[in-house]
Formats: sequence, structure tokens, C-alpha cells
Amino acid sequence: MKPRLASETLAITTKVVLPNDTNTLGNLFGGQLLAWMDEIASVSAHRHCHRVVVTANVNNVSFNSPINHASIVTLEAKVSRAFNSSMEIFVDVFVEDNITGRRSKSNEAIYTFVAVDQHGGPIQVPELIPETEEEVDRYEGALRRKQLALILAKKMSPKDATELRKLFME
Amino acid sequence: MKPRLASETLAITTKVVLPNDTNTLGNLFGGQLLAWMDEIASVSAHRHCHRVVVTANVNNVSFNSPINHASIVTLEAKVSRAFNSSMEIFVDVFVEDNITGRRSKSNEAIYTFVAVDQHGGPIQVPELIPETEEEVDRYEGALRRKQLALILAKKMSPKDATELRKLFME
Amino acid sequence: MKPRLASETLAITTKVVLPNDTNTLGNLFGGQLLAWMDEIASVSAHRHCHRVVVTANVNNVSFNSPINHASIVTLEAKVSRAFNSSMEIFVDVFVEDNITGRRSKSNEAIYTFVAVDQHGGPIQVPELIPETEEEVDRYEGALRRKQLALILAKKMSPKDATELRKLFME
Amino acid sequence: MKPRLASETLAITTKVVLPNDTNTLGNLFGGQLLAWMDEIASVSAHRHCHRVVVTANVNNVSFNSPINHASIVTLEAKVSRAFNSSMEIFVDVFVEDNITGRRSKSNEAIYTFVAVDQHGGPIQVPELIPETEEEVDRYEGALRRKQLALILAKKMSPKDATELRKLFME
Amino acid sequence: MKPRLASETLAITTKVVLPNDTNTLGNLFGGQLLAWMDEIASVSAHRHCHRVVVTANVNNVSFNSPINHASIVTLEAKVSRAFNSSMEIFVDVFVEDNITGRRSKSNEAIYTFVAVDQHGGPIQVPELIPETEEEVDRYEGALRRKQLALILAKKMSPKDATELRKLFME
Amino acid sequence: MKPRLASETLAITTKVVLPNDTNTLGNLFGGQLLAWMDEIASVSAHRHCHRVVVTANVNNVSFNSPINHASIVTLEAKVSRAFNSSMEIFVDVFVEDNITGRRSKSNEAIYTFVAVDQHGGPIQVPELIPETEEEVDRYEGALRRKQLALILAKKMSPKDATELRKLFME
Repeated sequence: MKPRLASETLAITTKVVLPNDTNTLGNLFGGQLLAWMDEIASVSAHRHCHRVVVTANVNNVSFNSPINHASIVTLEAKVSRAFNSSMEIFVDVFVEDNITGRRSKSNEAIYTFVAVDQHGGPIQVPELIPETEEEVDRYEGALRRKQLALILAKKMSPKDATELRKLFME
Repeated sequence: MKPRLASETLAITTKVVLPNDTNTLGNLFGGQLLAWMDEIASVSAHRHCHRVVVTANVNNVSFNSPINHASIVTLEAKVSRAFNSSMEIFVDVFVEDNITGRRSKSNEAIYTFVAVDQHGGPIQVPELIPETEEEVDRYEGALRRKQLALILAKKMSPKDATELRKLFME
Repeated sequence: MKPRLASETLAITTKVVLPNDTNTLGNLFGGQLLAWMDEIASVSAHRHCHRVVVTANVNNVSFNSPINHASIVTLEAKVSRAFNSSMEIFVDVFVEDNITGRRSKSNEAIYTFVAVDQHGGPIQVPELIPETEEEVDRYEGALRRKQLALILAKKMSPKDATELRKLFME
Repeated sequence: MKPRLASETLAITTKVVLPNDTNTLGNLFGGQLLAWMDEIASVSAHRHCHRVVVTANVNNVSFNSPINHASIVTLEAKVSRAFNSSMEIFVDVFVEDNITGRRSKSNEAIYTFVAVDQHGGPIQVPELIPETEEEVDRYEGALRRKQLALILAKKMSPKDATELRKLFME
Repeated sequence: MKPRLASETLAITTKVVLPNDTNTLGNLFGGQLLAWMDEIASVSAHRHCHRVVVTANVNNVSFNSPINHASIVTLEAKVSRAFNSSMEIFVDVFVEDNITGRRSKSNEAIYTFVAVDQHGGPIQVPELIPETEEEVDRYEGALRRKQLALILAKKMSPKDATELRKLFME
Repeated sequence: MKPRLASETLAITTKVVLPNDTNTLGNLFGGQLLAWMDEIASVSAHRHCHRVVVTANVNNVSFNSPINHASIVTLEAKVSRAFNSSMEIFVDVFVEDNITGRRSKSNEAIYTFVAVDQHGGPIQVPELIPETEEEVDRYEGALRRKQLALILAKKMSPKDATELRKLFME
């Protein structure tokens, strides 16, 4: 299976925040953004493996600043690392300033998708090759996050999480 | 501010999975479930503090087994711990067997909401009192998860995360 | 077929009223509430018989007080009586006070569902056993309502509606 | 206030049944049809009084035959009688045969709307003048149905429901 | 194949503009109206040929005056001319004045649909017979518009567009 | 007002075709695509002028090949020319092959938007500078299309449409 460059998996979507996407303060609902992130992350994962993909995990979603009604929101998803049948995807969310058009980052999330066959069973995906500094940084962090997920799901003992232990032992 | 019992914050919602909620394998989309979980978690957070609440973080969402079209899905959200102005909420998702009606757990997620005033600024919420064994267990884990989130967001040094370090040092 | 307790058929759903659910006065549209009531009533009917169920009749839906945008609305559905292949379901709708959290009843509706096989033909459902005072009260009223429906549909002569006649003859 | 002819209140809408409107048998969900009926009934009521109108009651909704996915469905709503501030509206639902185009009636429902001012308080509406045989028939039945609703809501004693009693006393 | 009268293809739908259909000025979004026009145009095309129909072209959609939130909007679609397997449909959009009920035209669009068999291949449709002055006028313009579309798609040379040339040569 | 490059107005969105977006042949509905094109065209227009924009015209939308359920669809919108207060936007639609990931163009549309102030009145927008061959080609065609629209709307006489006449007179 031919490895794929991180840049080949980039998926972009731009949305306008409509009234029904907002809470009583007139800002975008978290739940709506979570659904949008899932859709574009699935496109990125699909571009990596060209198979049916399903959401496996969602983590590290942070909502720092509210996004107003009528904002233009751009979501960029890119695979950060591929394992056997799973792919970790970063989703970065940007909002455009209405006057200057300058965009600022408002959210980030990490989704994991699994490639499945027609019966829903996991199947092998290609390796991912990171190129830019950010891509390499996220690629390297992916293993620590995978160990952390396994520990939290009690499928790995903390003492076997060699990558993660370094963080706390130094 | 009078503390509130965890059981007082329980919020329940039951849904039927419709065609538009499904992927090409005929199973519930992750993004749709994320949005449903956010809505019911917000109700639970509101029942704790009776203020406007907004999503701050989402973590540990796992999708273990696919949920079929036409399934009856029940989401139960309960506040696990309250901090100054934030509340951690567990959402448990159950699917009913069509023939026996027996329900089995299919997903779990941890949402954090913040209570805000009319300008979106954070405001104080009551303390939470856990009662059952599960409530106590989740209450105690909340501090470790909060430290972990702060570390990952680079707002805390790993060496200050006393609760979390124990996990790796033992 | 083993009879089922009314309490086993309880189905609960909680919703937040979003902008798109509201009319020009900022209150929940009747049509949206009717659709929500139908969905949760179908879950209750399904819990009684574990078969595919379809809406047969809707009656006695009253909208007494308006429900505001951003309200938390809880719908509770419970089978009130089972006939051969049909089930009568009561849906009670409650709204929570934003400050006190106290809930008050705002609507009531009576739905009838029929259990069907894969060709849409009616099939037998279990009997229902009422236990609480309210359950017994609604169980007993169900026969009068069924007779009334048959009369209005001109499938029964008023003089054969023995239960209903009592109401007017006393 | 000038009376209005029943024919002036006719409101028509035509829909195509989409995948998301269907149940597991591939037929139109009752809840979706209830919402469509409410919307077109509100247009009819608005055409009668030219004021904001809100749903007050729904009754006698019957679902006789299933409506398939991709069907063309036409709803016709017409005010059957006006009282002080309320209007009774009949909604007739027709489905077109895909080959012949011939349409057949599949459902009927009776909605009651109330005209309200900007504070939600009830306001006077014009009288309705029925012309055709069907319009006259429905106009006359409206009083019996109103009495029945009042009795069921325990706001009228059965012995005062003169119109309704006749039905059972003959 | 028996020709069909233009009047037999009339399809009407009436909608209420909801919050989610509006832009930041509180007026109906163009995109929502385009989708509504497509749906009712497909019903008109279906009434002409009683076959599955798919959108082929959209042209001449003009949005002259904004349509406010809560407006009652009526769309009327009618086939203007049938060619081999395609049908040109005019959609006229009217808005009702809230006080007087008088309706005024706000938009117009021209959709082309093609009748297809189960594999998506084009199939023959009946001829259309225009009767009223407007129907004849639109019928005659259809040929010019078809030539224009072919020229713009570079499937016809301007010098072969005999009908259209007249317009510029006179 | 500083002119803007065409490339600065590029807006991209990627969607997955869900069940509810499909017709009875399992392909994307024209109406849904029209709404998606309108949304992304509005973002492109906004990026050109940073003002509220509203749809003024839609033309030349062609649906050549059907788009299947579950397809990944990318829409690219770019302003082709700016006039006083209006902007012409081209929307190109691409579909990805599920196996190879290769994308092919499936649709094209031309939208016109107008920049408006808070009362809905038209306001001046910057000039557009085309750079690539395609941008220049579309820029030059825009004047012909504007004249054609004016003629069809009977706001210009064919003999004054100098640009357009050339097409037929050569």
C-alpha cells in the first residue's frame, strides 16, 4: 500500500452560521460544530484510504471563543497519523473577521476514524508521511495520545505507555 | 449557593435513528450522535446551575459498536463534578434490542460546559454532591481529567499535575 | 402473549426549543411539538409490543400555554390501553422554569398506534396492565374514546356505544 | 368585521416524500404529516383573519393508508367555522397515483387555531360563511365538536351539550 | 402519447418563512427559495409525464424584492413547453400582504427537467398544449431559450439559432 | 476602494451526499445542490466586498451527470466580475471518484449577488482583477451575460447590446 502525504488528505469546508445553529446568546451551538467537524474529518480520512470510514473517537475539542450568528466559519481537516486501520485527524476551525476578512483560529479537535469493509470490519490503511513542521509535530504526538486513550479505556497499563511516561517522569 | 445532588442533574432523551442520520453502511453517523450528546449534556448542566451554559470541551467520546437505522437510542447525561464556573458531564448512550427490549451501552462521552452571564462571561455554579458508587468514581476522576486537559493545552506543567502523576509513578 | 405493565412502556425525551421551532411571537410551533410527540409516542408503543408501529389516530391535543424559545421541554409517553393490534398512548408535555427548575404541564395528547408486520398488516399486541390511579383512569377512559372515534368515523352507531351513552344519559 | 367566505380561506401545499420523512417500512411518518398539516392550517387561518395565529387543538387525525416514499402529497386546508377568537380548520390530504395521476384522499384532520395580538392574547376574528354542501356540513358539525372538546376538557357538563346530546338521545 | 394541457401541469405550494430560512437582514435566503422552486417544479414536470424527472437546467432566476421572515409565500409551477424528453417549467413566486392578504409577484424562474427511466436514461414525454395568452407566450419563447442554452453550452453555432438571431437582426 | 484579485475571493466547501439529499434514483436532488451553491457563492461575494450580500440572479445552472448518494462533492466559488454594486460568481462543482480519488467536474452555475447596507439598499463594491486565463475569459463574458439578462428582463433593447450582437452578427 503506497504511503500518502499529509497534504493530500486536506479537506476544507466553509459554512455560514444560520439562526438555527445558535444558542440563546446568538452564538454557534457546540453540538452543531461537532457535527460539522465530524463530516469534514470523514472526508479527510476518506481521502487518505479511499474506503468507507466510521468515527471511532473524539478528543481534545475545545471551544475557546464564541462564534457569532452570520459568521463565516472554515474547517480544515488533515490526517495527522495512520495506524493499522485507524487514522487520527486534526480539525482546525477558523472564523473570518467581517470587516477585514482576517481569519483567526477559534477551535481545534482530534477525531479518530477507522476504515471498514462492507461488513463493518476494520481494514488496513496506507501509512501517512508528514512534511511540514506542524505535520511532524502532530504525527509524533499521535502515539502519546493513542497510549493515553488505551489507558483511559483500561486496555493498556500506565507502565507500558513508554511515550507517555516520559512526559511525567522528566 | 446550595450544593446540588448529582441525581438532580440527570437528563434523558430518547431518539429514533432516521435515514438521514445514517452513513453508507446504514449506521448512525458519529457527527449526529455528537450533536445529540451536546444538547442533552447542556440540559443536564442547566439543571445543575439554572443559567445559560455553553460547551467548553469534549473528550473521551468513543464509538464502539455501530448503531443501526431505526434503532431506539437513549442518552443519559449527568453532571459528574462542578468546578468554579465549569461542570463536567458524562453522557452514556444505550441502544435497545428490537426483540427483547434489553438495552446495552454503546457509547460514552465527557462534555464540559461553562455557565455564563448575558455577556458571555463565566459565573459561579453550585457544588455537586455525588452519592452512588459510579457518581463518586466519576467525581474523583474529574480532577485528573481537568489536569490532563490543562497539560495538553499547555496551561499546566506535568510536574504540577499531582493527581495525574500518581497514575504513572506507582 | 405476556401482558405488560403500563410503567414498562414509559418513554421520555427532553428537547431545547431552537429558533427554527418558533413562530413570530418567539414561541414553539404547534407542528413541531406534534412531530416530537409522535416520535416519542412511537417509542412507547414499540416498548409495549416490540414490533414496527405506525400512527393510526391523533386526538385531544391541546395547546394551553405558549412555550418560549430556549425552553427545556420534556415529553413523557405511556401506553394507556392495548386493544387487538392498536395501542392508545398518552403524551404529557412539561416545561421547566428557567430559574427554579420547577416543571409545569403545558400540553397533553392522545395518539393511537397500530403494530404491523413487514407487509403493513395489523398484528396482535400484548394486553396492558394499569397500576397507578392515573393509569387506571386513563385505561378506563380508553374504551369510551375508542367508541367515540368509531362513531365519528361512522363505523359504529351511537346507540351501540354503551360506555359513551352513560356519559350523556345520566 | 366583514364575514369571509370559506372558499377564501383555502390553502394548498404540495410535497414530495423524501427519505428522511419515512419509517422503516418506507412510508411517511405520522409526525412529519402532522407538522405539514399544522403549517398549512396556519396559512388557512391567517387568510381568514390576517392576524398572527397559534395552534390551540388538534383532533380527529386519522391515518388510514400508508403513504410511500417519493409520493406526491397535496394538503388542502379550509376554515370550517369561526367562533369568537378561534377558527376550526379541516385539512384534507391527497396522494397522487404515480402512473395515472389520479388522486385519492388518504387523511383528514381538524385543527383549531386562535388569533392573538402581540402579547399572545386572543382577539376577535370575522365570521365564516359556508357555501358548498361540504362546507355547510362541516360548519354545522363544528359546534358539536366544540362541545365535545369542552366536555373532554371538563369545562362543560355533558347535560349542557345540547347539540351533542341529540346524537345519543335519538 | 396523448398531448397534455398546460393547465393540467399546474403545481402549487405555500410556505411560511421560518427563522432558519433567513439571512442577517431577516429576509428569505436565495438558496432556500431555489430549493423550494426545484421541488415544486419537479411536481409540475411529473404531472406532465408521470415519470421520474431530474433537474437539467436552471435559468433566469431573479430576486427583485426581499421576502421577510414569517411571510406566506406561494409558488406556482407550470410546464411551458415539452421537447423530446425535456420540459421547461416556469415557477412564479408570490408573497401575501399580511394585512390585506393581497398577493404580489416577487420572483420568477425557469427550470428544465428531463424524464428518465430506471437507469437514468432520457425517455419521451407528451407534447404540451398552451391555452391562455401567457401560456402561448411562454411556449413560444421556450425555443429561443433552448437555442440560447445550446449556444452557451457550445453545442450549437449562433448562426444556426434561427429563432434567436431574429431578436438581434431586426 | 482597493481592487481585489479574483483569487482572493475563492471559497471552497466539501459535502457528503446524505440520504435526504437524494431523489428516487438515489442521486443528489437539484434543489439541494442549488442551495449549497448559493451558500458558498455568498461567501465568495462576501470575501470580495466584506458587506452583507443577497442573491440577485441565478443563471446557466446545468446538471449534466447525476451525483450518487455518499459522494464527496466539492464546490468552488469565485467572483468573475464586479459591477457597481453587483458581483457575478461562478460556482464549479466537482465529484471525487471513490476508488481513485480523481475529481471530475459535474456542474457549473453563475450567481449574481448584490452588496447591501443595513436597509437593504445597494452599495458600491471594489473592482475585480482577473489573472489566470480562465478568470480573464469569465471576466470578459460577464458583460455579455449582463446585457443578455437585461434584454430578457426587457430593461435593454437588443440593438443596444453591442457585446452580445457581435456573437450573432459575425
